[in-house]
Amino acid sequence: MWRELLPVGRHQDSGGYRRYAWTGADADCRAWFRAQAEARGLTYEVDRNGNQWAWLGDPLAGDAVVTGSHLDSVPDGGAFDGPLGVVSSFAALDELRRRGAEFTRPLAISNFGDEEGARFGLACVGSRLAAGQLTVEAAHRLRDGDGITLPQAMEAAGYEPDAIGPDPERLARIGAFVELHVEQGRALDLTGDPVGIASAIWPHGRWRFDFRGEANHAGTTRLVDRRDPMLTYAETVLAARREAELAGAVATFGKISVEPNGVNAIPSLVRGWLDSRAADQDRLDAVVGGIERAAREHAERAGIDLDVVRESFTPVVEFEHALRDELGKILTGRGDADRAVPVLGTGAGHDAGILSASVPTAMLFVRNPTGISHSPAEYAAEDDCVAGVIALADVLEGLACS
Amino acid sequence: MWRELLPVGRHQDSGGYRRYAWTGADADCRAWFRAQAEARGLTYEVDRNGNQWAWLGDPLAGDAVVTGSHLDSVPDGGAFDGPLGVVSSFAALDELRRRGAEFTRPLAISNFGDEEGARFGLACVGSRLAAGQLTVEAAHRLRDGDGITLPQAMEAAGYEPDAIGPDPERLARIGAFVELHVEQGRALDLTGDPVGIASAIWPHGRWRFDFRGEANHAGTTRLVDRRDPMLTYAETVLAARREAELAGAVATFGKISVEPNGVNAIPSLVRGWLDSRAADQDRLDAVVGGIERAAREHAERAGIDLDVVRESFTPVVEFEHALRDELGKILTGRGDADRAVPVLGTGAGHDAGILSASVPTAMLFVRNPTGISHSPAEYAAEDDCVAGVIALADVLEGLACS
Repeated sequence: MWRELLPVGRHQDSGGYRRYAWTGADADCRAWFRAQAEARGLTYEVDRNGNQWAWLGDPLAGDAVVTGSHLDSVPDGGAFDGPLGVVSSFAALDELRRRGAEFTRPLAISNFGDEEGARFGLACVGSRLAAGQLTVEAAHRLRDGDGITLPQAMEAAGYEPDAIGPDPERLARIGAFVELHVEQGRALDLTGDPVGIASAIWPHGRWRFDFRGEANHAGTTRLVDRRDPMLTYAETVLAARREAELAGAVATFGKISVEPNGVNAIPSLVRGWLDSRAADQDRLDAVVGGIERAAREHAERAGIDLDVVRESFTPVVEFEHALRDELGKILTGRGDADRAVPVLGTGAGHDAGILSASVPTAMLFVRNPTGISHSPAEYAAEDDCVAGVIALADVLEGLACS
Repeated sequence: MWRELLPVGRHQDSGGYRRYAWTGADADCRAWFRAQAEARGLTYEVDRNGNQWAWLGDPLAGDAVVTGSHLDSVPDGGAFDGPLGVVSSFAALDELRRRGAEFTRPLAISNFGDEEGARFGLACVGSRLAAGQLTVEAAHRLRDGDGITLPQAMEAAGYEPDAIGPDPERLARIGAFVELHVEQGRALDLTGDPVGIASAIWPHGRWRFDFRGEANHAGTTRLVDRRDPMLTYAETVLAARREAELAGAVATFGKISVEPNGVNAIPSLVRGWLDSRAADQDRLDAVVGGIERAAREHAERAGIDLDVVRESFTPVVEFEHALRDELGKILTGRGDADRAVPVLGTGAGHDAGILSASVPTAMLFVRNPTGISHSPAEYAAEDDCVAGVIALADVLEGLACS
């Protein structure tokens, strides 16, 4: 099952994955999901927002237990971020059937569309739309780097963009959502546990900094006559690091777009995207406020116009304590594992974070020995992946079986 | 004539020109050149390197006077850089015919291919090949941003890439080459002259800085675990400004390429291109050496691997004194203009600079009131353009007519 998915959307040069929403690679991933569902006799459906569902039992009965993740990737991402959760969901179902488990609640496996936001710049579009956290108007305005709108992309992929929107009835039929995900830090590696439970997702957001100067010839324009936005961008990148260090937070400029981007042309526009996250809202405000203040000071001195646009924001997400405790009990009481399963916070956003506003939600993390993610070097050991599947099967059995 | 050329390769959003070598916009420019040549009964030819020529008189007679420039552009360039020289050449010929001038030497108008290097990263490819300053092997290795090689691009445009190479016999038939160009600084504006003569082109080069770190998740990777090449790039951009200020030179990072370039991914690779120029070789060495030293220090501290590759280099070009003095005499003795025409250096490279190693070469500059170039805001007043045509006609008459 895993093997079939491995080559899809893998880029020859980088070895990383380029599975962007509504592209051919995404369609291949979605076809794989459907085939897995059908091979297991599950009821396959796609909701109005393009999220995929595979049902065991009656989708309309209510109080369903749902598990899943996403199959899309960041640019040159790793093999595990997203797919591990979906593959583990199918594998956990196989394990439960092997055990002869009797289901007392409907079970579904889900694949949420466009989680990474690699193409349209906004993460978790599929779950945000379903949960009413992204308006249809705003979604219709999303554009990729080539100017293609989300509706155009969905239509080209054979979906109906006019159908998108909130899906409260569907979410109301879910009694619990559990997402398994590869850990994106080294906490489990440091505690020596293969699997952990999520406590909270740090508040985080994305801000676009547009530095506008004046395009000019790089060889003939005197330094004093220049309004070079690259200099102000560089000052801002360094300020971001300083502010993040001060607050014990993270701040990253990982994406940039330059016009005209010619070797012998002073840029007219440098557009840099800031990603920042912190353990709480006050700290995040302090970091981003400090970066913006530094950027404005440098911009004013250099004659650069600066616009800062918050492109997305997700407040702190505390996962439901009751469900989290239930997972803790299920996983701690097993076999000879009398040690408590670690509970950890994370700086990464997830569909589970979006859905937690509407549905009791929990997350399981699988150890990542290097902590590297969003890179071809992202990795989880096979034994830990198996431990993840068993833990997820135990959780689903505890929640959905008699 | 000018009007027909204006819409070619103009980008709707920016208002700037995107006339890159061997693209459709380039083909349209070249068709325009050929039509202008044929409309004037000139003998049209394309040399082995794809440069266009329009001959009045016998191309093989020798001691020809040649004038011309280029039609390609930087990304979102202005309307004047290049085309003003070609358009003025045809207009000057029209003026000379109006005057009933009798030609005693063959005259040619030329359009050199790929002057700006916007597509393949190397400037003046057409003239460099002809002058033997770029080997066929090196030219065959040139690749654009999409991985298309120069031979592939030439072939797609209907040219024969295997034919390219040095053209000494053709150059030996040229007795004088004069290139008219819009000024790319404000020297003529400051002296109040519509037209000037070039003294020298500053030595200049392009260096590619590859900063390699480790791709990772921007939300979950602790600052201390990061190897973020964007930080080292930013330090280097600021170092370039400082070093250029110290030396009275220019240094610019105007082009960047980032992998994977995702909002929530720490980059694995930041590639920045440095363009630097100075009045003499010692100063240029000091600037680029200082920048590289600063970059290496920061890279070492941050665990970043740094490669610096010199992609192109052109030593200082002093235009031939005899031809320069002759132009000065022709232009100063005219009408009531008893004032000497200003003679000025420039930081910009030109085909004239390349050809000056093989052929007596001179340049005329036309005033640019803002000094802005390589931008849609590049500008020359109509009166000054006319003054440029008259000056070029006077020069050609003085050199090529009895």
